[in-house]
Amino acid sequence: MTEGFLLVLSAPSGCGKTTIVKKVMAELPGLVFSVSHTTRKPRPGEKNGRDYHFVNRAEFLEIADLAPSGFLEWAKVHGNLYGTSRQDVEQRLAKGFDVVLDIDVQGAALIRDNADSVSVFIAPPSLSELAKRLRGRGTETEESLRTRLAGAEKEMQEAGNYTYLIVNDDLDEAVEALKAIIIAERCRRRRDKDGLPAAVTS
Amino acid sequence: MTEGFLLVLSAPSGCGKTTIVKKVMAELPGLVFSVSHTTRKPRPGEKNGRDYHFVNRAEFLEIADLAPSGFLEWAKVHGNLYGTSRQDVEQRLAKGFDVVLDIDVQGAALIRDNADSVSVFIAPPSLSELAKRLRGRGTETEESLRTRLAGAEKEMQEAGNYTYLIVNDDLDEAVEALKAIIIAERCRRRRDKDGLPAAVTS
Repeated sequence: MTEGFLLVLSAPSGCGKTTIVKKVMAELPGLVFSVSHTTRKPRPGEKNGRDYHFVNRAEFLEIADLAPSGFLEWAKVHGNLYGTSRQDVEQRLAKGFDVVLDIDVQGAALIRDNADSVSVFIAPPSLSELAKRLRGRGTETEESLRTRLAGAEKEMQEAGNYTYLIVNDDLDEAVEALKAIIIAERCRRRRDKDGLPAAVTS
Repeated sequence: MTEGFLLVLSAPSGCGKTTIVKKVMAELPGLVFSVSHTTRKPRPGEKNGRDYHFVNRAEFLEIADLAPSGFLEWAKVHGNLYGTSRQDVEQRLAKGFDVVLDIDVQGAALIRDNADSVSVFIAPPSLSELAKRLRGRGTETEESLRTRLAGAEKEMQEAGNYTYLIVNDDLDEAVEALKAIIIAERCRRRRDKDGLPAAVTS
């Protein structure tokens, strides 16, 4: 069995990342989400091991102390620790799954340093189109909208560090593109530097 | 406009390469075949500039003498010269087309040395399956079949030098895989080392 690969996805909020990923995972078998560790308390309906691995601070730090680094990336948000455990990812990869990691640009940069991965940046067709989409939701004040757009502009500076860029102009095309990237990466990893897998040459 | 890329395809005969490429080109816009130069005489129905650029020996050698090499690869087959002109390919790429080059493993190795390219090797599920398919055609003597299989086995040793490997187990899946590779490469090339294209950040 071929080992899976780690797929890192980032996008400014409002670019349709969650919708795209969900559609791709529904259509393409062999993909699983990475499950993060966190010190934050579970919210109603959240299940340990499915939504997060809920741990206390001591347990989190114990993983962080492992060598090589027990977390491929970690961050502190509103006083809580969040991290992507190397062991958790490696176990899923070893089972042949491609592991999807939905993460911000800072986390993605850490992942690139710490693990072999394929990264995809999903961008809006333009900042003005993103502003239109966020306004269309009707859930943002003008101030929070300005903050989001400034954040998006900054995140988009990082797009060049990703392996692939998808511009979400049309949702169906963006879904097609992400599926294509995953299928292509499987073909790339299938070819072995030493030739074909034994099964093919027999 | 984004410049296209050069897509090099090789496969042992009987692996379905021609069928796969034709289906992909019918479904996916933006692809054109590279048109080779040759010193061989046109056959009935062949059109200059479409099937080949038909040239005489002196014209062929004049292109070969250009620096940097006027041919990305060339070969002599049954006394005739065949070559892939750098200028011809570059002109198509500059127009934004992805240029498909259907070529044997020797030619593909030369292309890799001489040009930025993406290469795909199409393999049969196994040599025994390939033998079955070739026998099924009913057009081969046992001797020519043995020669073909020996050739296929040798060509398959080169698969590890290609960017991607497609194992043609199921025709529809192989078509899907080649389409995916092209779409993914377009996403790879779209992300610019310096960030997003100007159109996206405006």
